[in-house]
Amino acid sequence: MKILILNGPNLNLIEKRSREDYGSFSLKQIEEYIREVFPNHNFNFFQSNREGELIDRIQNASSNYDGLIINPGGYAHTSVSIRDALEICTILKIEVHLSNLASREDFRTHMLTASSCDGYISGFREKSYIGAIYLLEKLTT
Amino acid sequence: MKILILNGPNLNLIEKRSREDYGSFSLKQIEEYIREVFPNHNFNFFQSNREGELIDRIQNASSNYDGLIINPGGYAHTSVSIRDALEICTILKIEVHLSNLASREDFRTHMLTASSCDGYISGFREKSYIGAIYLLEKLTT
Amino acid sequence: MKILILNGPNLNLIEKRSREDYGSFSLKQIEEYIREVFPNHNFNFFQSNREGELIDRIQNASSNYDGLIINPGGYAHTSVSIRDALEICTILKIEVHLSNLASREDFRTHMLTASSCDGYISGFREKSYIGAIYLLEKLTT
Amino acid sequence: MKILILNGPNLNLIEKRSREDYGSFSLKQIEEYIREVFPNHNFNFFQSNREGELIDRIQNASSNYDGLIINPGGYAHTSVSIRDALEICTILKIEVHLSNLASREDFRTHMLTASSCDGYISGFREKSYIGAIYLLEKLTT
Amino acid sequence: MKILILNGPNLNLIEKRSREDYGSFSLKQIEEYIREVFPNHNFNFFQSNREGELIDRIQNASSNYDGLIINPGGYAHTSVSIRDALEICTILKIEVHLSNLASREDFRTHMLTASSCDGYISGFREKSYIGAIYLLEKLTT
Amino acid sequence: MKILILNGPNLNLIEKRSREDYGSFSLKQIEEYIREVFPNHNFNFFQSNREGELIDRIQNASSNYDGLIINPGGYAHTSVSIRDALEICTILKIEVHLSNLASREDFRTHMLTASSCDGYISGFREKSYIGAIYLLEKLTT
Amino acid sequence: MKILILNGPNLNLIEKRSREDYGSFSLKQIEEYIREVFPNHNFNFFQSNREGELIDRIQNASSNYDGLIINPGGYAHTSVSIRDALEICTILKIEVHLSNLASREDFRTHMLTASSCDGYISGFREKSYIGAIYLLEKLTT
Amino acid sequence: MKILILNGPNLNLIEKRSREDYGSFSLKQIEEYIREVFPNHNFNFFQSNREGELIDRIQNASSNYDGLIINPGGYAHTSVSIRDALEICTILKIEVHLSNLASREDFRTHMLTASSCDGYISGFREKSYIGAIYLLEKLTT
Amino acid sequence: MKILILNGPNLNLIEKRSREDYGSFSLKQIEEYIREVFPNHNFNFFQSNREGELIDRIQNASSNYDGLIINPGGYAHTSVSIRDALEICTILKIEVHLSNLASREDFRTHMLTASSCDGYISGFREKSYIGAIYLLEKLTT
Amino acid sequence: MKILILNGPNLNLIEKRSREDYGSFSLKQIEEYIREVFPNHNFNFFQSNREGELIDRIQNASSNYDGLIINPGGYAHTSVSIRDALEICTILKIEVHLSNLASREDFRTHMLTASSCDGYISGFREKSYIGAIYLLEKLTT
Amino acid sequence: MKILILNGPNLNLIEKRSREDYGSFSLKQIEEYIREVFPNHNFNFFQSNREGELIDRIQNASSNYDGLIINPGGYAHTSVSIRDALEICTILKIEVHLSNLASREDFRTHMLTASSCDGYISGFREKSYIGAIYLLEKLTT
Amino acid sequence: MKILILNGPNLNLIEKRSREDYGSFSLKQIEEYIREVFPNHNFNFFQSNREGELIDRIQNASSNYDGLIINPGGYAHTSVSIRDALEICTILKIEVHLSNLASREDFRTHMLTASSCDGYISGFREKSYIGAIYLLEKLTT
Repeated sequence: MKILILNGPNLNLIEKRSREDYGSFSLKQIEEYIREVFPNHNFNFFQSNREGELIDRIQNASSNYDGLIINPGGYAHTSVSIRDALEICTILKIEVHLSNLASREDFRTHMLTASSCDGYISGFREKSYIGAIYLLEKLTT
Repeated sequence: MKILILNGPNLNLIEKRSREDYGSFSLKQIEEYIREVFPNHNFNFFQSNREGELIDRIQNASSNYDGLIINPGGYAHTSVSIRDALEICTILKIEVHLSNLASREDFRTHMLTASSCDGYISGFREKSYIGAIYLLEKLTT
Repeated sequence: MKILILNGPNLNLIEKRSREDYGSFSLKQIEEYIREVFPNHNFNFFQSNREGELIDRIQNASSNYDGLIINPGGYAHTSVSIRDALEICTILKIEVHLSNLASREDFRTHMLTASSCDGYISGFREKSYIGAIYLLEKLTT
Repeated sequence: MKILILNGPNLNLIEKRSREDYGSFSLKQIEEYIREVFPNHNFNFFQSNREGELIDRIQNASSNYDGLIINPGGYAHTSVSIRDALEICTILKIEVHLSNLASREDFRTHMLTASSCDGYISGFREKSYIGAIYLLEKLTT
Repeated sequence: MKILILNGPNLNLIEKRSREDYGSFSLKQIEEYIREVFPNHNFNFFQSNREGELIDRIQNASSNYDGLIINPGGYAHTSVSIRDALEICTILKIEVHLSNLASREDFRTHMLTASSCDGYISGFREKSYIGAIYLLEKLTT
Repeated sequence: MKILILNGPNLNLIEKRSREDYGSFSLKQIEEYIREVFPNHNFNFFQSNREGELIDRIQNASSNYDGLIINPGGYAHTSVSIRDALEICTILKIEVHLSNLASREDFRTHMLTASSCDGYISGFREKSYIGAIYLLEKLTT
Repeated sequence: MKILILNGPNLNLIEKRSREDYGSFSLKQIEEYIREVFPNHNFNFFQSNREGELIDRIQNASSNYDGLIINPGGYAHTSVSIRDALEICTILKIEVHLSNLASREDFRTHMLTASSCDGYISGFREKSYIGAIYLLEKLTT
Repeated sequence: MKILILNGPNLNLIEKRSREDYGSFSLKQIEEYIREVFPNHNFNFFQSNREGELIDRIQNASSNYDGLIINPGGYAHTSVSIRDALEICTILKIEVHLSNLASREDFRTHMLTASSCDGYISGFREKSYIGAIYLLEKLTT
Repeated sequence: MKILILNGPNLNLIEKRSREDYGSFSLKQIEEYIREVFPNHNFNFFQSNREGELIDRIQNASSNYDGLIINPGGYAHTSVSIRDALEICTILKIEVHLSNLASREDFRTHMLTASSCDGYISGFREKSYIGAIYLLEKLTT
Repeated sequence: MKILILNGPNLNLIEKRSREDYGSFSLKQIEEYIREVFPNHNFNFFQSNREGELIDRIQNASSNYDGLIINPGGYAHTSVSIRDALEICTILKIEVHLSNLASREDFRTHMLTASSCDGYISGFREKSYIGAIYLLEKLTT
Repeated sequence: MKILILNGPNLNLIEKRSREDYGSFSLKQIEEYIREVFPNHNFNFFQSNREGELIDRIQNASSNYDGLIINPGGYAHTSVSIRDALEICTILKIEVHLSNLASREDFRTHMLTASSCDGYISGFREKSYIGAIYLLEKLTT
Repeated sequence: MKILILNGPNLNLIEKRSREDYGSFSLKQIEEYIREVFPNHNFNFFQSNREGELIDRIQNASSNYDGLIINPGGYAHTSVSIRDALEICTILKIEVHLSNLASREDFRTHMLTASSCDGYISGFREKSYIGAIYLLEKLTT
């Protein structure tokens, strides 16, 4: 299975954020952990702090991948544009968050982009990604 | 691993609800599917339409189980009492929803009980449960 | 015609509430009045203060009755779960209220459960029930 | 019994609106249906798209009729003036709506004029009128 | 001084409304009282329940009168159109209300049309008109 | 092409309103300008300050015209009834505004009637009408 | 007639505020103007920037005056305490404002203290006081 | 004096909740403490996680007790039905809370059930109950 | 025990307010009643209509008293400054209200100052003070 | 006339979005259609998914073009920065939308960027652009 | 340069508040620190817990000082009257706050008085004052 | 001291914006002015209209600079992502605004990014930067 894993702004520095919310893995370590748990899938990882670059990747995902996992970071709550790009994208799409958004600041409980995904997973730190990949597998069988 | 799976109001009749949101499995079929995918765990299933019965079970879960999976149905958005019961409960707790709540009515986007769980999973129909059990495993290893 | 008449919390004591809003009949007297006005129908009356018991009855109504009349009392404004149970129920459903909700406290003007019924009637005291039964007759002919 | 039946804006064209919400009767057919079901009452029908004309009729109703049935259409949600006219009117007053307002757009759930009526009925299409007349009868006996 | 006194919906029946809010004068008696207190002015009284007729009068006031006193009744809170008509009108304009709007229902505290008048007076029953004429005099000297 | 151009309250006096928002044309001049730019169409112009008269015209438009252009003035933000009349009307419908509503008072940014038109044009003063007619032409070819 | 005229914060400097809203009179000039227009009344003027001093005066007004005129300035919108003091005060009470509050900032449209007065007058600059005294006269005859 | 002390959901486990908010007593210890401080009263203690059971007890309280003390837990903020049951109950009623609700989450500051009690006490942990009993005594003497 | 009892605006005139809300005692009578019930404590009573004077007293309370009882009157809902002063004050602090705030106007349900106290008591008229002193005793033993 | 036509995020893929809202043209086809209808103008087309690139182009437009047509896509509702860039831009500016925003999701009815344009056009699919160019012509003659 | 430094309620006790928000200086120490850093200016310091006294000082500032620095404490968010006093004051005015208001409770993010100052500085503890004086210097050169 | 000064969208064109809000300096002139006032610091200036580029710079600032001054322009009110980047950044951070945001449009009063800075300065035009650098100096000594 060919899977694109998109990470939005500040995820390149998560190891510097609150441990209780984000865990202690760096994005690099999350990637290694994913490859280790799922050695048979073909992953492409991309991180960007820029809304437009993420939209570009989402737009191109349909023709190149079987599934898309996206952690839009702060854009999850504000980007109508990423929401629209996901709506157009026709492959399986799962939104993941490291922290449990339901227990954080009010502005993080408004799920704008998730409504254009198949589903979302929130609160399991690096394991949110693992759960998403596991579900991608299950959804395609 | 000993896991309690709680289902709230109307989940005993999900096969009669919108297929697009809830899928086509009955609660019985979800149980069978779970046992089939995870034959090595010890599951206890309980469904109730009554808020108080769900609270009773959550209160007793800590001493009897290693993990709790709860689909609170409509109570997810209104029950301060289930929220408080989950807060007291000290084992791993995952909230699951069959449908993608972010894309439904406004009153279903307010996540009251999820803020007292470790994390939540929404939108994968019967597979939301499978994903939750998989994550329970991962969180305890 | 076989009709289930469900009454929610505190309707067992309506004769003790504000006469202007609720009239002077007890629930018992309402039942007698209904049987007197419609001697040819087969009624089943059930009152409960418990949300879960009401949901149980709604869930079982489809296979046992031709029509459902429900006065959810205070649950009319807060219960997502009763709303969902009514949505699943496939027989004719009418929500009734003794008082005119439009002229009372703000928290009584939000109609959550009524949106899953065929229609609703509010403000005619004990006669709200009579009107509902009359309409059930008309809707089935 | 002498009954005034007022219909507000666009009710002269209901047969052109959504069938699911409004049913398939024209206003003419509703009138015929009413006369057929209640041959012994004396009905006066009046439809107008103009707020002021409806207010005029409500103001004159007290001295000429035993009861008033009003479907204010869109004015139900915005007209303080019709609300005030109904408050002054001292005969029995019932507000009716063809569609179930609780399940439609937000701006149709605000019941401004109904708070000045004795009660209201919503969701039974042309039968909402029949139910209202039946209740007028019951309320006066 | 030539003064137009406009009265909106339901003011033709004020003697039938709550005495505490509106006093006990009929509109006719208010007119007589005004003429008695200010015998030297030239008054034109017009009452209508229709928004459009009121707008027509406001639009024509500038060329025919020295001052305008308007009690827009319920339109005070909802009519953008009367507000706009008053904005265009270039003579002195005073809005009056019989009752003290600040102490009534919420929907009566939103002053939409008053913002296009020179000032407003609320709460003195029939004397609100007298106060307004007195002020018109003072404003023009 | 046979086109009905409806203008709502206060548009008969626009030359007296703020030049920056409304331009300097009178309604008469707008009509002449339209006829000059589009000499081959058959226009019917109607202005009224009365909500009900506008509804009457909208209701009759379907059988008599190919297209409808409406500037509802202040009713654009408050009239559920005009909104419903437009919804029933089956010919092409374009809402126009002289001023740029997005940059004015809050109460002018709520577009109630426009949601029942094919589209809307705002901010080009008298040229909003010209643009609307041009688009009517394009939409029918 | 013995009348207490209370002026709240910043009214001692009104001649320095926006002329369009407040006119060009100083508080001193307003006092002189009042005495000139109503030479036969007995006035007591008091201005304070302090909420507590205003409350003291209102509390003592009942036993010493026939009527109270208050311009609470900014406290009109925020002071529950002045509102309560006015509620206790049993003589005639009129609230006045120099500017037309309905056309100013949002925070000036919330009338908290006025709801405990007999009525209020807004927008006639120094003449608001004159109008209030005139109405006090009329209300006591 | 015969006093019913009702405790709502999760109060059977308070010793497991935040010490700062709830103190360190178990519900059992609170009962013992109450009996120790007030040895001469006749207490009946009842705890339930179920809304309906609490309503049943409230409904029966009037004929069996002199006073009612209720800690509705999370239902204090959401249960219209408990609020209505308390309204019907004619004996003295005091609502108590262990924690200071004014300083906690927003959803705990909305006091729905307290409005149907004689008064409420919040923030004194186990001593809130003691204070309530002391006040019951004082209110009946 | 040395206790400061602060009363805010208008409490010096409570005997003139609504009996149903405030009871029939004057502030003087409340003081006498307190001294009678608790003859062994050392009380200091202070009432002021001025926010600043209340703040002064609160600021000085820590070094001179064992406990503080405050009825902030209307300031309970609007004064950030009293709230902050209470937060700094390190002795036991109890807020009391004569009336049941939960059942009154909306603007009286927002508890701003109470969040900086240990707890609050509302609805027992003059007995609210007695209950507070009783609790102060209990909290210090 | 030299015209810059800016298209924001996801407009490069509109042919994949809902036909009812967006029509069936690709962005390429819209460009061709525009050139065909207006062969005498000099157009520059630019599409980007990136907010910053759109701002760059808007900032440079004043010195290089006679008019600007912008479809900001999702940024229309969220970008204060594009709004500010348009405010600085001194040439004619028209905002266009393919779909009728007034009839879509709530978050699409907030027009943030349009308030800095001369006007806006919404709902005519690819013809919205044609209408905008036609109006640019008219506005410059 | 002659500078008035006003401090509002509770600033006389800041050393007792949260160190993280307010730092560890007493108001006395802040004054000494200011005099030390700016030995050449002429400072007048005034602190009061009373809104009215602060207003008095602001009103007198224009004729006696070159600049005004105000830390209104809790009044920053609630006092329309201080806001109005500042608006009248014609010298340079800077509002300062010790803590970073943007990161505190919601009720501290509403800046009512700051809108009448030239600018404001928030979050630098005692250094907020130093920054303000430095800017006063720069603004007058 | 090594200081990074970041400027967000449209600040490269400030000299074209409202003089009253932004002053008359170009960004170039602000830079020169800063270097002139603080010749001994080492400044790095960066302006971008792109959210992502600003995030990149903030992320890299910790290891390369002693302090960060940011004027996020319009992103100050909408960018969760810049807010999160600032939270991660561990050097001193000051947000500056040229205009006094408290006195402008509502959407500019919501301070999202400032809550992750040490403090913020608003309203002193080009001198806001000077004040920020001065404070950076003071905060590090």
